[in-house]
Amino acid sequence: MSDLNAAQNHQDYVHGLVVVNTGNGKGKTTAALGLLFRASGHNQRACMIQFIKSEDGQWGEVKTAERLQIEWFKMGDGFVWNSQDIAETRRKALQAWDLARQKIVSGLYRLVVLDEFTYPLHYGWLDTGEIIDWLREHKPADLHLVITGRYAPQALIDYADLVTEMQLVKHPFKEGIPGQPGIEY
Amino acid sequence: MSDLNAAQNHQDYVHGLVVVNTGNGKGKTTAALGLLFRASGHNQRACMIQFIKSEDGQWGEVKTAERLQIEWFKMGDGFVWNSQDIAETRRKALQAWDLARQKIVSGLYRLVVLDEFTYPLHYGWLDTGEIIDWLREHKPADLHLVITGRYAPQALIDYADLVTEMQLVKHPFKEGIPGQPGIEY
Repeated sequence: MSDLNAAQNHQDYVHGLVVVNTGNGKGKTTAALGLLFRASGHNQRACMIQFIKSEDGQWGEVKTAERLQIEWFKMGDGFVWNSQDIAETRRKALQAWDLARQKIVSGLYRLVVLDEFTYPLHYGWLDTGEIIDWLREHKPADLHLVITGRYAPQALIDYADLVTEMQLVKHPFKEGIPGQPGIEY
Repeated sequence: MSDLNAAQNHQDYVHGLVVVNTGNGKGKTTAALGLLFRASGHNQRACMIQFIKSEDGQWGEVKTAERLQIEWFKMGDGFVWNSQDIAETRRKALQAWDLARQKIVSGLYRLVVLDEFTYPLHYGWLDTGEIIDWLREHKPADLHLVITGRYAPQALIDYADLVTEMQLVKHPFKEGIPGQPGIEY
């Protein structure tokens, strides 16, 4: 970290942050989309890897990502709580992490989002300690890495630079209003 | 609300939500950018009105908004805590609210973001009760209205459909790392 000290007086020195958006509220993935929105304006190359979401669905965010030339990978098989085949779910998480490692070490990106990456950690499909060790060794210093999802393990919070907990205060689903295009997806 | 009841069985019926992102953590404005990101993919016309941020600065989000043809208005005179002239700050908040009302009633938008709108309410530059009364009467039923900022007044929370509190768990500024392009702006 001696380069970091040397650059302290530089207003624009680049320090790739590890950002975690966790909690039971809305806005974890949405705030990650907001970071893609910002990064794109700076012409920073960015990549999104979704660990849980599957290929199904026509999400607004995927179309915008195409327009902004943000690379996007849906690697999951749907929502965790719908898993019919836990071995398959685990296999897909491993596949997604293989892809994530390739993207992280490639040096091509300034921002990589690992969406809902906390679930494979929380459920033990991937080993949190091994992953943090790998990230400490391999994450490029100028890469911003954003991880979203509930139940962020404490070791991940300890490793991260910026952690926000999104807390549910009030949710319209509880009042019978279904998810709205442009808001929920 | 009788139309709403009639549409209950429609999977895609549109119910414009009032969304509030508040709390002391990161991600309030960023999650609003994420909603712009989604809305754009659905070809929903959207508009951002910033109550505090001034014309200064070259933010990534403004450039992306141009690319996505999202209308963007910076109506403030900087950060609240830097205000040299409180009468001027108050005048600018009133101007921004005039613009917001025009945009809300225009019928042109599916999503309007009032960024950092909670501050004029919290500091009493605008009257929260009057504003909620106005919104109840004039907000189009299919318009999603997103309001961000700390210190959301309780009356606003009561009025809103979806409220999330972003809580700071860990912040890199505390460890001497300055704001990073693509993350903070």
